[in-house]
Amino acid sequence: MPRLSDKAVYMPASPIRKLVPFAETAKKQGKTVIHLNIGQPDIETPEVAREAIKNAAIQVLAYSHSAGFESYRKGLAAYYVKNGINVTFEDILVTTGGSEALIFGFMSCLNPGDEIIIPEPFYANYNGFAVTAGVKIVPVTANISDGFALPPVEEFEKKITSKTKAILICNPGNPTGYLYSKEELEKLSGIVKKHDLFLFADEVYREFCYDGAQPFSVMNLEGLSENAILIDSVSKRYSMCGARIGALISKNKEVIQSALKFAQARLSPPTYAQVASEAALATPQNYFDQVVEEYVQRRDIMVDGLNAIPGVRCPKPRGAFYCVAEFPVDDTEKFCQWLLESFDYQGKTVMMAPLSGFYSTPGLGKQEARIAYVLEQGLLKDAVKCLEEALKVYPGTRR
Amino acid sequence: MPRLSDKAVYMPASPIRKLVPFAETAKKQGKTVIHLNIGQPDIETPEVAREAIKNAAIQVLAYSHSAGFESYRKGLAAYYVKNGINVTFEDILVTTGGSEALIFGFMSCLNPGDEIIIPEPFYANYNGFAVTAGVKIVPVTANISDGFALPPVEEFEKKITSKTKAILICNPGNPTGYLYSKEELEKLSGIVKKHDLFLFADEVYREFCYDGAQPFSVMNLEGLSENAILIDSVSKRYSMCGARIGALISKNKEVIQSALKFAQARLSPPTYAQVASEAALATPQNYFDQVVEEYVQRRDIMVDGLNAIPGVRCPKPRGAFYCVAEFPVDDTEKFCQWLLESFDYQGKTVMMAPLSGFYSTPGLGKQEARIAYVLEQGLLKDAVKCLEEALKVYPGTRR
Repeated sequence: MPRLSDKAVYMPASPIRKLVPFAETAKKQGKTVIHLNIGQPDIETPEVAREAIKNAAIQVLAYSHSAGFESYRKGLAAYYVKNGINVTFEDILVTTGGSEALIFGFMSCLNPGDEIIIPEPFYANYNGFAVTAGVKIVPVTANISDGFALPPVEEFEKKITSKTKAILICNPGNPTGYLYSKEELEKLSGIVKKHDLFLFADEVYREFCYDGAQPFSVMNLEGLSENAILIDSVSKRYSMCGARIGALISKNKEVIQSALKFAQARLSPPTYAQVASEAALATPQNYFDQVVEEYVQRRDIMVDGLNAIPGVRCPKPRGAFYCVAEFPVDDTEKFCQWLLESFDYQGKTVMMAPLSGFYSTPGLGKQEARIAYVLEQGLLKDAVKCLEEALKVYPGTRR
Repeated sequence: MPRLSDKAVYMPASPIRKLVPFAETAKKQGKTVIHLNIGQPDIETPEVAREAIKNAAIQVLAYSHSAGFESYRKGLAAYYVKNGINVTFEDILVTTGGSEALIFGFMSCLNPGDEIIIPEPFYANYNGFAVTAGVKIVPVTANISDGFALPPVEEFEKKITSKTKAILICNPGNPTGYLYSKEELEKLSGIVKKHDLFLFADEVYREFCYDGAQPFSVMNLEGLSENAILIDSVSKRYSMCGARIGALISKNKEVIQSALKFAQARLSPPTYAQVASEAALATPQNYFDQVVEEYVQRRDIMVDGLNAIPGVRCPKPRGAFYCVAEFPVDDTEKFCQWLLESFDYQGKTVMMAPLSGFYSTPGLGKQEARIAYVLEQGLLKDAVKCLEEALKVYPGTRR
């Protein structure tokens, strides 16, 4: 039998993969598993998008342009302009999810062996895209004690080598929910300019900012137009995770031209999903107002509830729909498994994502877990209660 | 400005890219351009698939399983069994088009710098996937004189080095339309076994076999279950190019497990398109009968018509919906451009794909072009007439 590639070996499995069989067993035992482990919202996809699919007069389901429908790219450009981001449709390449935008971006900008600096904890699938492109992730560690704010610029400087080619941020952040301020981003911009790096920004949670906070896009950093690459997606914005439509956006024409060559090889992004995504641009503002209001309530139930449990600490995030909580336990990998395997409170238990898989530095995140507050408020209250009771009896609880 | 990657530089553009502006100009001049350059059929997508999308009761457009809907994978397995290919749903990973299946396959099986042998001329986008994976394509040249039959096994043997990891074939072939016989595939199997290689087979044109010919799948080669990897797609089968649904299929569990890790990183294939693809499995046999009958007529019009033009040679293919023709001209790149730029016959002209972009060896294919006979018969007749007249006046025609 021929040997697989090295990438096949190094490619990481999903951080919750080990827990999946335990969740299945728990369900077989009759327990209700409250899934806080994945960012799949229960929010309805806007009706305007769903109706567009029903009404699409498609006789031959043909390829679209490799860069996406021009009408959709123009609509997207108008969306960005409305959001204070000054781009034209020629700066936009429609991709198959934000995932593909990241891969095209990495492939276009980094050679195998090059380094990309990412504040950790970070979205675990960045590891997979880095393995795909043969790129090395160099982490800069953020801390729960300041709510996962951007680490000091000096920490980035320390990590820069002759191999450093890019910095990647997620803003608002998955898994932390932290929203970088304009000042933080300007500091980052200084390093990017000084070392002539690319700055990738995954801004797919732009709509999910709370308490009056406004997101600041890397596309609006002064003098960074050749360096900034925006990664976007309709998945969270319109609760359309299954569409698989994203975008790679940059004022750097060479980046877009290169990414287009990768896009041509795979022919086109999915057509039906582009129809839905284009229609979704007409989603009324009150849809977002309601969604944001709902998420604020969910966040407050979850975060306030967690902080009220003795020994638990959970910074209140101002964006996205995740929070990271620190638990007074030996190891959240064990704790999360135990919750599924050996615990229930009134027939319910909780599935969370242990945070170690979101850190690149080994050994970090052992007391932390990511919680996606994407379920209805009643379930979130149950989840808090469940965790409170669990910590009273979990054998690894540190008192 | 930071420098792009080496891959950005080496990534090839589409072989017809240079012609696109000339086609646009021709249209502006009022000419009708008959597009024989792209494999986008005009055949209607089966109604059962289109109706399934209209009737899909989707409220939240959610991620599917990273390997695709289990119900779809089970349906696909039944389709293969019906076609004499004995697989279960666990041997199948649903991908975003055949393109993604090839990338996952390359990433899982080949290291950067490894070599993959491909008979040329081959589907030009294989170059793009090879650049993406950092893999080197080593061509073995097939010839128009025997209709692009599989080159002798000795030619493959000559190209094998310590870096050779796989062979890739397309059967029935794009761009040649050649259908490999069981005997040819068994010869190939001998080399694959002897050198313990992976054998990738792109069999997306399986349904398009003519004159009573039956396709033989690499999945049915004796003793090759750990080596054979089938690449498939709904694009051509159901005229659903825009769905972007394909599959990676192998009895080699390590290959599927590795590919699944790459699939998990990108979360899921598109959901709407999976709904359509699953429904398309119920497409009645008479749909295919009609489509095949139509393609046979189109092929005969095109191939017989071309062979009747003095100096033109075009082997009659038994599969897919392409043919390769040799023209008595200086260079088909120039000829194809001239057709768009400087010629029309009764207001019409033809766009073909020059074949040099389908060869890996520089200098080959200069008299050849690929023709996709995916348009209605009247247009194909016009195209033949147009080419006949063009060759009478093209300055580079060799008499």
